[in-house]
Amino acid sequence: MRIQIKDIYTIQPDLSIKKCDIYISGGYILGVNSKPDGFMASKIINGHNKLLMPGLVNAHTHTYMNVFRNCADDLPFAEWLFDRIDPMEAKLTPEDGYWGAMLACMEMLSTGTTCFLDMHMFRNQIAQAVYDSGIRAVLSRGLVGEGQNEGGKMRLCDAFEEMARWRECSRLSFMLGPHAVYTCDEEYLNVVAESAKNCGVGIHVHLSESVDEVENCRKKYGVSPVKLLERSGCFDGRTVAAHCVNLSEEDMEILKAHNVSVASCPKSNAKLGNGAADIPALLDKGINVCIGTDSAASNNSLNMFSEMNAMAMYHKCLRRDPTAVSADTVYRMATINGADALGVKAGMVSPGMLADLVILDLDRPQLHPLGDMTAALSYSVNGSEVETVLVNGDVVYHKGEFANIDSERVYYEVDKIAGRIR
Amino acid sequence: MRIQIKDIYTIQPDLSIKKCDIYISGGYILGVNSKPDGFMASKIINGHNKLLMPGLVNAHTHTYMNVFRNCADDLPFAEWLFDRIDPMEAKLTPEDGYWGAMLACMEMLSTGTTCFLDMHMFRNQIAQAVYDSGIRAVLSRGLVGEGQNEGGKMRLCDAFEEMARWRECSRLSFMLGPHAVYTCDEEYLNVVAESAKNCGVGIHVHLSESVDEVENCRKKYGVSPVKLLERSGCFDGRTVAAHCVNLSEEDMEILKAHNVSVASCPKSNAKLGNGAADIPALLDKGINVCIGTDSAASNNSLNMFSEMNAMAMYHKCLRRDPTAVSADTVYRMATINGADALGVKAGMVSPGMLADLVILDLDRPQLHPLGDMTAALSYSVNGSEVETVLVNGDVVYHKGEFANIDSERVYYEVDKIAGRIR
Repeated sequence: MRIQIKDIYTIQPDLSIKKCDIYISGGYILGVNSKPDGFMASKIINGHNKLLMPGLVNAHTHTYMNVFRNCADDLPFAEWLFDRIDPMEAKLTPEDGYWGAMLACMEMLSTGTTCFLDMHMFRNQIAQAVYDSGIRAVLSRGLVGEGQNEGGKMRLCDAFEEMARWRECSRLSFMLGPHAVYTCDEEYLNVVAESAKNCGVGIHVHLSESVDEVENCRKKYGVSPVKLLERSGCFDGRTVAAHCVNLSEEDMEILKAHNVSVASCPKSNAKLGNGAADIPALLDKGINVCIGTDSAASNNSLNMFSEMNAMAMYHKCLRRDPTAVSADTVYRMATINGADALGVKAGMVSPGMLADLVILDLDRPQLHPLGDMTAALSYSVNGSEVETVLVNGDVVYHKGEFANIDSERVYYEVDKIAGRIR
Repeated sequence: MRIQIKDIYTIQPDLSIKKCDIYISGGYILGVNSKPDGFMASKIINGHNKLLMPGLVNAHTHTYMNVFRNCADDLPFAEWLFDRIDPMEAKLTPEDGYWGAMLACMEMLSTGTTCFLDMHMFRNQIAQAVYDSGIRAVLSRGLVGEGQNEGGKMRLCDAFEEMARWRECSRLSFMLGPHAVYTCDEEYLNVVAESAKNCGVGIHVHLSESVDEVENCRKKYGVSPVKLLERSGCFDGRTVAAHCVNLSEEDMEILKAHNVSVASCPKSNAKLGNGAADIPALLDKGINVCIGTDSAASNNSLNMFSEMNAMAMYHKCLRRDPTAVSADTVYRMATINGADALGVKAGMVSPGMLADLVILDLDRPQLHPLGDMTAALSYSVNGSEVETVLVNGDVVYHKGEFANIDSERVYYEVDKIAGRIR
């Protein structure tokens, strides 16, 4: 489909606002205010009183866990995980994973997220949900293992099978997902890092989420989790490290030296009692910080606008400094920084970028008067202003309706799953 | 109008969920699952797949300041106030105050708030906006003054005139609003407290918002702001104290002894760099804590669901404790605690309570699977699930439309004001 979006307020790469005409074809933005030769739109979207922005990038989540929403809250971490989440997870079938992921795709699309980085435990179902829903994703089969044991090898094999099976879907790409230093031993981390190098894919890992993780790693290996991942080779290629709540100065230097991107999940870290990453310090070091929602089991929403608000506010609060993390910074974290971290050519409205775009309705009480646009997006919106979402140049969501998803069917299935596993 | 809401999931006073039939007439809930004798509904609302809850109570805001949205962000406090807000405020006409308040009423109603406590600087316009919009409010003309000087007397006179003029509107009640200990001297605080006693109205005051406020008060008076307000008589009747970020143990004891309600504004306190009130400690003392958004100049939204999320999350984050402030607690703060603080017979779905009610659409991705209801309301919703809002037994909002407000007119006026004052 060749789409022209007419006369729409558009966030420019320098964050200024300009009324633009946008020309889209073949999945990409072909022109901004400059009609490509011979372009003939098959669809025109009227931009009156709308805002065009790049789709948000959710840089760390577990979509299948959407079936765990609102059933384990306000609990100490160990009780949350071992008494509540783990027993439910043990009951999940691969098909359950598909429906959880479909629900997550609905939630993300309807609140302006067009791409996400996922860690999961299935062979095929999350990729199928991405394929079916029309969203874009980078998937990583979660890898847990010790040395050369069979379980670890088998999971790695699953990851490769997933990559092979879905190699022709342009909206899907992959990373390897060593779960964390407390679920993978050093030998297995070496194997995973070597495999990632051989295949030319990145690494997606949980890192320094809790104080316990760091202390136990130091006890077992004599080094921090960051140092362990570095020496195992996990930082040699593209790496996205989720959480990074508990870092030393040296840890931060290592992350910077290896261009590791940090996917910070402020609401999940807060809700599980882990505190907050020191985002102002990471920014000072020049580290690429992006934003993740984590899963609905620990958030309990995948609304990136809400997460942007949290990202800005928590650090102003913690530091008692209104300048700690600005609206402009948060906007970049949720768009271009996320896209860069994932290796996806998106995150800006600019010719040559993927047409992963979000149109917001500006005629809402919370957007009058409009004022500064990144402030509006970080502090005033709640995600419900999202009217139309394009992924890969196709309209996948419009005014509550999904082009490729039957909402009723998804609700029916996830409610049934919840009834069974809880 | 006599309304029956049929077969709707309803949050009970004990926070359990039950399907109910609700009978409403004359502004009040007449029956829950028990039809009053001779009741004949003139309107029936079908509750299929909906949730009924009490309307949220925004316990501290400045509605006229909605015209300042998104124009002074990420700035140090002094620059924010003296260089940005004050110069704009000096340009406001009373009519501007009306349109700002109308916009605020739209924003609040559409996100489930049915009642608010306001501090303003106008004689008549905020009350007019409340009257026109159909919302419920407790208004307090902001009082600033020294001793027996003319300005302070005049403002007190304005406050009484406002009370007199609107005495017949049952949706409006009043408090006196001594602004803060740094804008009212002790003699004036005495006068205001005496006046409040004479009229039988409560006091609404900013209290211990910043470290500077506390330090300057100690320098000038030798006591904390809490102690100063106590000795001036401001705590002798019903009192709502906004912020309370910087309190000593003794301060908390004083607030408890006088049944002062604390209206905590987590997002405003964070955004202006003031930090956060020690809510877990206030709760331990048994102090009535409710929630306010503060104004759009420092938030920048009046969405109480977003504020509920902030209230729970900030304290989990600050204390690294997932149990610090629970979803149940936050729900109570935003409903019954707020209503109690304001002296409004609302905040629960129960016979005899005012019919200030909110109906949420449960068929949203973020509400599947549903799970624990207060967790859903505190952690998953964003406010856009609000489908129908009743105030005083009348439907004032339904699916984006306001019964008594012309949105286009309000947007036009506030945008014009913003253009003029910025």
